[in-house]
Amino acid sequence: MATPEEVESGGDTRREIMEATFRALSEHGYADLRVRDIGEEFEKSRTLIHYHFDGKHDLIASFLEYLIEQYEEPGDGEITDPWGALSDRLDQCLFGPEIDAFDHWERMTVYHELFAHARHDERHRAVFNDHYAQLRGNLTHVLEAGVEQGAFHDVDAESLAQLLTDVIHAARARRISLGHEDAPEQAREAVDEFVLDSLAASERER
Amino acid sequence: MATPEEVESGGDTRREIMEATFRALSEHGYADLRVRDIGEEFEKSRTLIHYHFDGKHDLIASFLEYLIEQYEEPGDGEITDPWGALSDRLDQCLFGPEIDAFDHWERMTVYHELFAHARHDERHRAVFNDHYAQLRGNLTHVLEAGVEQGAFHDVDAESLAQLLTDVIHAARARRISLGHEDAPEQAREAVDEFVLDSLAASERER
Repeated sequence: MATPEEVESGGDTRREIMEATFRALSEHGYADLRVRDIGEEFEKSRTLIHYHFDGKHDLIASFLEYLIEQYEEPGDGEITDPWGALSDRLDQCLFGPEIDAFDHWERMTVYHELFAHARHDERHRAVFNDHYAQLRGNLTHVLEAGVEQGAFHDVDAESLAQLLTDVIHAARARRISLGHEDAPEQAREAVDEFVLDSLAASERER
Repeated sequence: MATPEEVESGGDTRREIMEATFRALSEHGYADLRVRDIGEEFEKSRTLIHYHFDGKHDLIASFLEYLIEQYEEPGDGEITDPWGALSDRLDQCLFGPEIDAFDHWERMTVYHELFAHARHDERHRAVFNDHYAQLRGNLTHVLEAGVEQGAFHDVDAESLAQLLTDVIHAARARRISLGHEDAPEQAREAVDEFVLDSLAASERER
């Protein structure tokens, strides 16, 4: 049985391999990535990579889970201010977490590149589907709370959450692929004006 | 100087190379594609590919232009029915042109895969930027006509057209990458309910 120190050390090694994978993916892209490129970004022995992961396929699937975990947040807490909670969530999805030195857009670039390849890989697709469901679920939770509390109209929360999740995804993709640096800001303003404007319960009766 | 027959034949050959490229991309994906894979899908001599194109890079950029041309439509015609024109345009973008035997989703799959790689290639990025501008421009044209004719509220047409273009892109990406077959239908319904519902000039005054 592994001692706590060994477990801890194994966890550290895995994390270091994951960060090496991130740097290698950022530099080489998924298409051209070889395990040796990851080895070159990794400070310890390359044999440790082969000890922990069963080839590039397994490594990338694990990396994807690791990447997405960094964006995970409990989305089921109590909502006391639905408008504030909705705004915060949209901002965080569009602009990234407020952590200094956390390279959000480099991570998102890798995320979107792997997303585009997900149809070729059932395990990748399952991870992305879980993440999509989580993003939509967190927004649904906020919208349902707002409807219950009378802050929002009685909307189909899941359908609206799906629309917002799609807009977030597209704005990020547009920034990354087309170089539209202001795509997240544009999306935020358009959502405010054309979607959320009519969500206010006080504006009109249904 | 080339005779008309030779020009015609050159056009045919280029089209045949483009369709061979499409089949090879569908089968192998962009990452693993070699010019020889395209050669295997091409019925004529492989040397013709090298005669017409300067390597994989040039071939793919030309293919991208060819692919996008198939979706091009003049978007500056007179709009007599703004609601109908908007609905038709959204349907066509989300569900594909109504041409039997035109494999819209296979073409879109290739499109989205190349889109994800566009940041690596300025020529690809320029083609995608032109196409994005065209899609948004066509929607802007319909929205402006509707505003002018009093069918729609006085909205910022360009901003709304950008939001709709983003939603279309995301729904297609979600269908392709995550396997959500109903993503286009979901997006259409959500756009109707949450975006277009408040576009009606008669619904409320600004």
